[in-house]
Amino acid sequence: MRTIDWSDDTVQIIDQTRLPEAEVLVDVRDVDELVLHIRSLAVRGAMALGVAGALGMALAAVGAERWDQDLDTALDAAALKLSMARPTAVNLGYGVRAVQRARAAGADVAGLVAAALEVRDEDITANRAIGEAGASFLAGARRVLTHCNAGALAGVEEGTALAVIAGLHRRSPLEVVYVCETRPLLQGSRLTAWELSRGGIPHRVIVDSAAGGLILGGGVDAVVVGADRIAANGDVANKVGTVSHALAARHAGIPFVVAAPESTVDAETATGQDIPIEVRSEDEVLTVLGRRVASPHSRAHNPAFDITPAVLVTAIVTEARVLRPRDRISPAPVKTLSSAPPHSRSTS
Amino acid sequence: MRTIDWSDDTVQIIDQTRLPEAEVLVDVRDVDELVLHIRSLAVRGAMALGVAGALGMALAAVGAERWDQDLDTALDAAALKLSMARPTAVNLGYGVRAVQRARAAGADVAGLVAAALEVRDEDITANRAIGEAGASFLAGARRVLTHCNAGALAGVEEGTALAVIAGLHRRSPLEVVYVCETRPLLQGSRLTAWELSRGGIPHRVIVDSAAGGLILGGGVDAVVVGADRIAANGDVANKVGTVSHALAARHAGIPFVVAAPESTVDAETATGQDIPIEVRSEDEVLTVLGRRVASPHSRAHNPAFDITPAVLVTAIVTEARVLRPRDRISPAPVKTLSSAPPHSRSTS
Repeated sequence: MRTIDWSDDTVQIIDQTRLPEAEVLVDVRDVDELVLHIRSLAVRGAMALGVAGALGMALAAVGAERWDQDLDTALDAAALKLSMARPTAVNLGYGVRAVQRARAAGADVAGLVAAALEVRDEDITANRAIGEAGASFLAGARRVLTHCNAGALAGVEEGTALAVIAGLHRRSPLEVVYVCETRPLLQGSRLTAWELSRGGIPHRVIVDSAAGGLILGGGVDAVVVGADRIAANGDVANKVGTVSHALAARHAGIPFVVAAPESTVDAETATGQDIPIEVRSEDEVLTVLGRRVASPHSRAHNPAFDITPAVLVTAIVTEARVLRPRDRISPAPVKTLSSAPPHSRSTS
Repeated sequence: MRTIDWSDDTVQIIDQTRLPEAEVLVDVRDVDELVLHIRSLAVRGAMALGVAGALGMALAAVGAERWDQDLDTALDAAALKLSMARPTAVNLGYGVRAVQRARAAGADVAGLVAAALEVRDEDITANRAIGEAGASFLAGARRVLTHCNAGALAGVEEGTALAVIAGLHRRSPLEVVYVCETRPLLQGSRLTAWELSRGGIPHRVIVDSAAGGLILGGGVDAVVVGADRIAANGDVANKVGTVSHALAARHAGIPFVVAAPESTVDAETATGQDIPIEVRSEDEVLTVLGRRVASPHSRAHNPAFDITPAVLVTAIVTEARVLRPRDRISPAPVKTLSSAPPHSRSTS
């Protein structure tokens, strides 16, 4: 399964707004249509959006050729629309820029499509490398807990945290994956559980607040999550609820592992305190499936992310290295994360 | 407001299954009807169930007199029905036995009703004492977080954790109470938020997993929760999710306080590991408001409670004393909890 792919000059996506009720594949043939699907969250997740940005540029190039338009004018228009589809999603711009660089180097339409497919393939390769490295790091873990969706649906094929879980399961069948449902938008019970079902990996959905008792009660061997941004000191921004799992893992003495591509490491951001936390609509908390559940005059507070301090992170596994933030020693936490050679593996 | 009360030979309850959409008061005139309301969770919560057991016996006594039945036969039948209404709710039996003791001591119908009302009044008195003691202990806290519903709806008037919060607010208006929605059954957003609205106490509903980030981010001065059972060593069984808040509070260096009546302390249970954890229906997790949200082939795991180790508890505040489990020193954790004189206050 690929969340987003390219075939016959067409972008194909799985419409995530329909999951898990229906598995709907959508063929997308022009940039405007793709932008609508990005805005509706039919395609979502940092890595998948990077690929969407690149493949959107490929759509523009192919369309310009088909309709005999000026190629650079078409590419410029597409770049603007795609980059602005979700302004906070930095990866969209990453994919767009990869194709723009190819054009600047003189690529024709076929070369631009090839450049876009390279972004897709790099994502797949990175996902696999993260999965293998994470599975090696956690070898022997049989009961794993994850939060939100850091799976194929947030990438192209295997995702990050779910790539680690799939890697573990390939080596030796897992006993159980505990899937935190991930209120308010239920990406865990809707998307992660669906991916694990497809992969034939045994799992149980739990309410987010059941994780602490399970971990402290000895029922979990390791916690694996993705990341939305990693600060230079190793602090991790991820879906709200992540830090509670990290605290429980530390208290129970089990590994808490962050699986993420190198592109998630933000050397420009010094610490987690410098990462802005998106506060989303109160309605996501006060209503469920469109029906008000909370007391009628009550308001909500709805932060979408939290910060897990580096000291609680056992390891950050990327496609290039395994970082162990809590072992790092001053004066160089920033340097350690940003200056390591891209394909070495460090355990210091 | 009283969750459950007695007037004109009738038990009056607020139907909690209708909250927060509708505030429905129900008059209950016989034992069988009361048992149905207990089973449907129209009346719920350990302390409220103790009062329901006692008032149910009063209904039986009054009914026997009205219909000219044998009083002891009617009482025995009522005791059996009430005690079995929810087999795991030990407080139901506590209320029933209080009235049975009065009968054994020779009380007539009026005396039995008086004995039942004494259980109600003791509950109210205990709630007030817990509220005052907790507010004294936490004096100065302006931003408080609570979980589930340990309010009037689980008692008769003010409840336990919410009595502490109300006590703090009376002394000096609170800035905010963070109310964890408490998946899967949403007692926080449905019941606690409703009680705080009625009390004019400013509050925000949050998803349960937002608590960790708020606490670690410095946004909370204290955590206050109730308890379903307290083991002799100070381990606390409470609604699933509680232990995660305790871990975050410890990490952030803020107080984590358990507010509960003495009747919750179970000297017969040595540690939290000896407390059985009720595992409820998977459907509570897989569906929301009756609609399936999880992936169709996925299963759930749904523990209703978790255990907070005594070492994470700053204080247990009862109507009689303030216990500080983490300060206690062997060899006498059991003795410390079970042998203190009932109306002394200990901080050791």
